[in-house]
Amino acid sequence: MTRSSTIKQESPVLNPQRLIAQERAKSKINIDQINTFLESSPDRRELTHRLIDEVVNDPVLKTETSYYDQTKNEQRENTAKKIARLALYMEHDVKTVRKHFKGTDLIKDLQNDKECKLEPLSNKDLFIFDKRLSLVANIDPQLGTRVGVHLGLFGNCIKGNGTDEQIHYWLQERGALFIKGIYGCFAMTELGHGSNVAQLQTRAVYDSDSDTIVINTPDLTATKWWIGGAAHSATHSAVYARLIVSGKDYGVKTFVVPLRDPATFQLLPGISIGDIGAKMGRDGIDNGWIQFRNVVIPREFMLSRFTKIVRARDGCATVKTEPQLDQISGYSALLNGRVNMVMDSFRFGSKFATIATRYAVGRQQFAEKKGQPESQLIDYPLHQYRVLPQLAVAYLISPAAFKLMDVYYSTLDELYQASSPASSTDPNALKVVSQKLKNLFIDSASLKATNTWLVAQLIDELRQTCGGLGYSQYNAFGKGYNDWVVQCTWEGDNSILSLTSAKSILKKFVEAGTKGRFDEKLDSDSFNYLEPSFLMSVLSGQQSAEFEDLKDYTRVWAVALVKILNHTARLIEKTKKVDGVSKLLIMISKFHALHSMLKVYHDKLHSMKDSHVTDPKSKDALWNIYKLFSVYFIDKHAGEFLQFKIFTPDQISKVIQPQLSQLLPEVRKDCIPLTDAFELPDAMLNAPIGYYDGDIYNNYYNEVLKNNPVEPDGAGKPRYHELLTTMLKRGHDFDERLGGAANADILSRLAK
Amino acid sequence: MTRSSTIKQESPVLNPQRLIAQERAKSKINIDQINTFLESSPDRRELTHRLIDEVVNDPVLKTETSYYDQTKNEQRENTAKKIARLALYMEHDVKTVRKHFKGTDLIKDLQNDKECKLEPLSNKDLFIFDKRLSLVANIDPQLGTRVGVHLGLFGNCIKGNGTDEQIHYWLQERGALFIKGIYGCFAMTELGHGSNVAQLQTRAVYDSDSDTIVINTPDLTATKWWIGGAAHSATHSAVYARLIVSGKDYGVKTFVVPLRDPATFQLLPGISIGDIGAKMGRDGIDNGWIQFRNVVIPREFMLSRFTKIVRARDGCATVKTEPQLDQISGYSALLNGRVNMVMDSFRFGSKFATIATRYAVGRQQFAEKKGQPESQLIDYPLHQYRVLPQLAVAYLISPAAFKLMDVYYSTLDELYQASSPASSTDPNALKVVSQKLKNLFIDSASLKATNTWLVAQLIDELRQTCGGLGYSQYNAFGKGYNDWVVQCTWEGDNSILSLTSAKSILKKFVEAGTKGRFDEKLDSDSFNYLEPSFLMSVLSGQQSAEFEDLKDYTRVWAVALVKILNHTARLIEKTKKVDGVSKLLIMISKFHALHSMLKVYHDKLHSMKDSHVTDPKSKDALWNIYKLFSVYFIDKHAGEFLQFKIFTPDQISKVIQPQLSQLLPEVRKDCIPLTDAFELPDAMLNAPIGYYDGDIYNNYYNEVLKNNPVEPDGAGKPRYHELLTTMLKRGHDFDERLGGAANADILSRLAK
Repeated sequence: MTRSSTIKQESPVLNPQRLIAQERAKSKINIDQINTFLESSPDRRELTHRLIDEVVNDPVLKTETSYYDQTKNEQRENTAKKIARLALYMEHDVKTVRKHFKGTDLIKDLQNDKECKLEPLSNKDLFIFDKRLSLVANIDPQLGTRVGVHLGLFGNCIKGNGTDEQIHYWLQERGALFIKGIYGCFAMTELGHGSNVAQLQTRAVYDSDSDTIVINTPDLTATKWWIGGAAHSATHSAVYARLIVSGKDYGVKTFVVPLRDPATFQLLPGISIGDIGAKMGRDGIDNGWIQFRNVVIPREFMLSRFTKIVRARDGCATVKTEPQLDQISGYSALLNGRVNMVMDSFRFGSKFATIATRYAVGRQQFAEKKGQPESQLIDYPLHQYRVLPQLAVAYLISPAAFKLMDVYYSTLDELYQASSPASSTDPNALKVVSQKLKNLFIDSASLKATNTWLVAQLIDELRQTCGGLGYSQYNAFGKGYNDWVVQCTWEGDNSILSLTSAKSILKKFVEAGTKGRFDEKLDSDSFNYLEPSFLMSVLSGQQSAEFEDLKDYTRVWAVALVKILNHTARLIEKTKKVDGVSKLLIMISKFHALHSMLKVYHDKLHSMKDSHVTDPKSKDALWNIYKLFSVYFIDKHAGEFLQFKIFTPDQISKVIQPQLSQLLPEVRKDCIPLTDAFELPDAMLNAPIGYYDGDIYNNYYNEVLKNNPVEPDGAGKPRYHELLTTMLKRGHDFDERLGGAANADILSRLAK
Repeated sequence: MTRSSTIKQESPVLNPQRLIAQERAKSKINIDQINTFLESSPDRRELTHRLIDEVVNDPVLKTETSYYDQTKNEQRENTAKKIARLALYMEHDVKTVRKHFKGTDLIKDLQNDKECKLEPLSNKDLFIFDKRLSLVANIDPQLGTRVGVHLGLFGNCIKGNGTDEQIHYWLQERGALFIKGIYGCFAMTELGHGSNVAQLQTRAVYDSDSDTIVINTPDLTATKWWIGGAAHSATHSAVYARLIVSGKDYGVKTFVVPLRDPATFQLLPGISIGDIGAKMGRDGIDNGWIQFRNVVIPREFMLSRFTKIVRARDGCATVKTEPQLDQISGYSALLNGRVNMVMDSFRFGSKFATIATRYAVGRQQFAEKKGQPESQLIDYPLHQYRVLPQLAVAYLISPAAFKLMDVYYSTLDELYQASSPASSTDPNALKVVSQKLKNLFIDSASLKATNTWLVAQLIDELRQTCGGLGYSQYNAFGKGYNDWVVQCTWEGDNSILSLTSAKSILKKFVEAGTKGRFDEKLDSDSFNYLEPSFLMSVLSGQQSAEFEDLKDYTRVWAVALVKILNHTARLIEKTKKVDGVSKLLIMISKFHALHSMLKVYHDKLHSMKDSHVTDPKSKDALWNIYKLFSVYFIDKHAGEFLQFKIFTPDQISKVIQPQLSQLLPEVRKDCIPLTDAFELPDAMLNAPIGYYDGDIYNNYYNEVLKNNPVEPDGAGKPRYHELLTTMLKRGHDFDERLGGAANADILSRLAK
């Protein structure tokens, strides 16, 4: 409702509210069931809604359209306020899981538990807060990152590389896990090295005289760069540096290095820190740079689960390392981020799909025939093609994201168990878990890269479908895109991740194809297309690409994968150069991700137990989404499907494209309930053209007026108006006459 | 050079400066000749360099990296300062063209020339300033737009729709063309209507009693929205409103409506104006909204070249209109913008291609073998694939952009001549020029849409190739992208423009195919692929897609166009629905643009006179760029080339893709000189990782430090540090101990 103006609110020609209400009245699908499907289970769904409700109504945490007008400094400070608020929720969430609100103060108990008598904090204790943080990251991404760097990167670096004692000390006793006591950052990237972690130049030299380690930045390019939290908030850092003992370089290891006095916030001796400054997005994160000048830390601050400096009685030092796990664990801190980014892809995708779909239904432009009411954008086939597959993208990410998250937690638990001193007697357990970790690396890399790219395109494409109103900052697309796209670069550049995962897949393919190797237990989930008999049937031409049942929409991608893998392997064989096929490798990683997403979605929806969807109309709608996703991307990749002879040109023209044209109007029928089923409250969308009631024009107008009050010098008269009047008046007194324009002489000339 | 730090500037492993210098030393191509080719002619080249030099060295106009840190208000005010400065250049540029610096004040003479005795201001008088403005738009896009709205939209709306007297009065006498006296905005778009101009709702009702026109905003959705300049700077507006005379609606016409008193800058009665607020980019533009409440203007303020209210002696009013030209001229104000956006695409594209190519050559990451120096990014085939075709995009846009600009000016001159009262006796001239205008609409729409999309992708893709440093605001990509993408939406949404142009092409195709109609004189330039004998030879299968000579890289796109047009026409015949083929229409518009670009580039480079390139090595390099562009997009569109049987799958695998793989390392050899040949000074790039000397790390580090001085509370200690210390200290006194962490008890536990 417009309060600030007497202008007529109803238009005789446009009524988006009514159009959106009509869609809801017409549709028969069951939003509850679909939301449960999207949120993975009734319990998780309930938790999601509870947490969103708490966050968007919290006086400090809630985000309104004024958010889009904040300067960099305001963003930094407001984010810090929100972190302090989230820290309180963190304690509350841990107490909730442990059901411990009475008697003693659980947090105090855990922090004072030097002898480790209580059950240590585990991932299970954190599951509510982790989910809260994951949701926060989609309401206020910079807040999510700023806490995520501390808990997810600093915390997981210690969890992944520290001994049990180090984990207990830094995270629990010092309070890091409760966001208190210390605040961590993750000092990996340097100005000169990002992806190539093994070549980082920061030096950590062991000094046996004092039994300490001396950290130094040897030159400008070794400056730690982009370090989130370093500029303003971190008291400690997890530093990646080359361990040098007795002159020998042992490669890059991890160290906890204090940066600031937590009480006074002064920088400690030898630490230089600066602000990285303005970024494309996420300016609320205080990314900084760090240089170390002879910073001394005790030997015991080196994280030593897999690599240890052992000091003999004579002061002579040796380095003991478990190379197999050392390398994997070195990167494991990044795994958590990648897994979370797939979940973010679902939430971000669903947010923008909701906004754009509602706008497409409410907005009218051009009439089919003169005199008729103007058509809704969503009724144009081109608009359906631009919007609805993006809606399908959001749907297809969800099951894959939840599954990846589950696999991540179970694998990390296994790794922790298998590598703990108690169980180090079972080398087989270590071998199995390291194999699982490798698969997790492949899946998470391919899903992270593919989905962050897909969602970057989704935001961009959907913004364009909202025309000018999509370019207005208050409708979320601008900041949303700018905040999003860094996901394609950080914690593993998408191209590098795609290449790495595709090379591993290719290796598995060659082993399966030439040696019939296939690990039924470990590989039948994500890599089922490498099953040797399937491989053979594809390569011998027995697998046709037809759509006889629902499975085929997934299977056709398996066929494509095998054919591209085969083509790629042959090219490498011929040229002996892996680099030459990198474009194909990127495609393999993408196809692997699309195939996984379709497979997980299919299996989940197919299972009565897992899908939670009993209503047949809802199920049909969900199957249409599934088909649309598959067919849309086949058409997008028609080049590959034709080049590798999975389809003929006629099949593309007469099967794929007509099916695409026929699915779009089907999905269009339920498009409003399908976006309602994401159940994102307006406060989470934070984009007035996408609010639930569909009152697009009034909602948007109100937010613009609220955020842009009348200038102090008068409406429409800017502070700097003298600059303008001086310019316009320059030279002659000629222009002073106002109204003179209407004099008879001039008018008679104009009328000629 | 780093001044603010004693850190060692040279790295023992990384030396980008040397790498870039090596490239320059190795290459033999002639940068002068190539730049002349890109800038179209020696004269134009000289002018370009002179104007860039003036702008980037002007104390008010120059843009530094501090630009990226400005708040919205600072951007608005600084842009206004720059407008005032540009206004002085405008006078100077007009005097330069007329060679009139002595005796009388030319500007004063022109403004006071009520009897039109002097030669009126023409496009010729403005060519220096137009070019200056076009360059400014690529150094500071929001400044370019803010002046462009006044001169290009407000000015061209009057030029296109006003009578000679109105043009003379508003633009010359009132001073608008000199950016003085009045400042205009362009009030077309409304909240509820953008693309569908014919349905705009603002009302202009003629009142015959007072012989005036009353302007009203009937409801909220009719609020003029997005109006650049309205929020702060415009004194007058060109308003698109429905003309209603004696109750009859004559459709949308244009009116000059005063908004503010130019002396006091107060809003005039009946005018309500507000600020649209934050946008995704270009926050320096004061986009506003306008509502009119019974605003009265004299009848003579209606722009009346093609539609006129004629008042009889008895006060009875009739409307006289020339419908043929009325509609075209209604949109002609947007033409100038579209034509300019193609030129912007060249300049923006070349800017980001320069930055990313230099970074790709200077940046090293990962070594091929252990112990070897790390490879330069540009030597990875994938990186070549990501960067070099984008370089080719910038090259291919240039000749098409210059040609379009020339055609635009000559056609507009013809239109002006043909529609002036003196020549209204020659109906044939009007017919010819209206046909030329239609072709210009097609070409400019298709080139604008295609190239603004291509450059949006170019910026995004190239930013990603610069990793994290591309996400830093100081390296130009962030603001560059945000400023750029609105070009895909404004002055004709790209999808709508593509559809419109493709429909016209399709109509021509049907006429050529079924009736053998082809206008040799008008259509053989852009539409040569519709020449009936060529059509027949393609459709009867006589045109094979082979690469025998250079022309074939263009011809293959002509073949593709004909086949897609034919497929599309048949689908429409079958389904009777044009909307159903809109995805194909988008493709047709894109292919039309790619074909035009290749053709114009080919013809120019082929002509000794036009190319200005005599050096054979340079010519070879330019031909490689041409081939790369064609082959890269064929591979990108392999789906279409295969589906429409222009190529077989084997041709894609064995001809196209190998050729692509072979061209990339060829173009890579000269990639630094090829970017140097854009001759963009560092001050125009405004991105330290792309500066000429290639000292990537020091340049970037220096800019970051300059823009992010030490916090007032001490280095790395933010203003809001108490927020953080309070959070960290909460609950227990436990965390107060600093250094306590190093006590023997704790260390012995950590060492376990």
